[in-house]
Amino acid sequence: MPKSDNLYSTIPAALPEELFETLEQTGGFRLERIVSRGHKTPEGLWYDQPQAEWVALLQGEALLRFEQEPESRRLVPGDWLCIPPHCRHRVEWTSTWPEAVWLALHYPEPVRTEPLESE
Amino acid sequence: MPKSDNLYSTIPAALPEELFETLEQTGGFRLERIVSRGHKTPEGLWYDQPQAEWVALLQGEALLRFEQEPESRRLVPGDWLCIPPHCRHRVEWTSTWPEAVWLALHYPEPVRTEPLESE
Repeated sequence: MPKSDNLYSTIPAALPEELFETLEQTGGFRLERIVSRGHKTPEGLWYDQPQAEWVALLQGEALLRFEQEPESRRLVPGDWLCIPPHCRHRVEWTSTWPEAVWLALHYPEPVRTEPLESE
Repeated sequence: MPKSDNLYSTIPAALPEELFETLEQTGGFRLERIVSRGHKTPEGLWYDQPQAEWVALLQGEALLRFEQEPESRRLVPGDWLCIPPHCRHRVEWTSTWPEAVWLALHYPEPVRTEPLESE
């Protein structure tokens, strides 16, 4: 049976910390659901990741700040970004109701190589 | 600047055929947005893919049928599935308003190997 679930279900009633869950993972990537309920990156901290990240906001709203940009970007459902390795960024704000649900794909190479065989 | 877009925007007014767009791709995966507006798999055809696929329905509704199951699964927004290689399946129906927006991740290996370095 194919493994299945719903991205908007199974969100705990209490969420003292952000929720990070790996949905699928191989040697080539890690796919993660993140749930934020008003959580933000701690003051003064920037994410500086060795890997590339494709991230989409699927529910809620968020303010995402890149160090190289003067202002935060306001994200609404469906917004996605490709964040290159070592592109410093932080989450300045997330909504509480509905909470912010993110889908993040972490992968070692941002460059295109051999195309995968199509369906 | 990080590349960005919105999963629910840039949907053509006319959609005679399903829309397939690669959002990101490396040697390890291909991430694709699919938009279906009432489209379904042609009669008698089953998808039989050499690669694993993680697929989520993000908007709209759909009926997804697996050959090994007697009935279709009704998918609503947020529903996702891991489809193993060569697990034969077909899309029996998709909504027209709103249209069905899917996110599909195609990858060569369904097995877990080395975990990626965390953030």
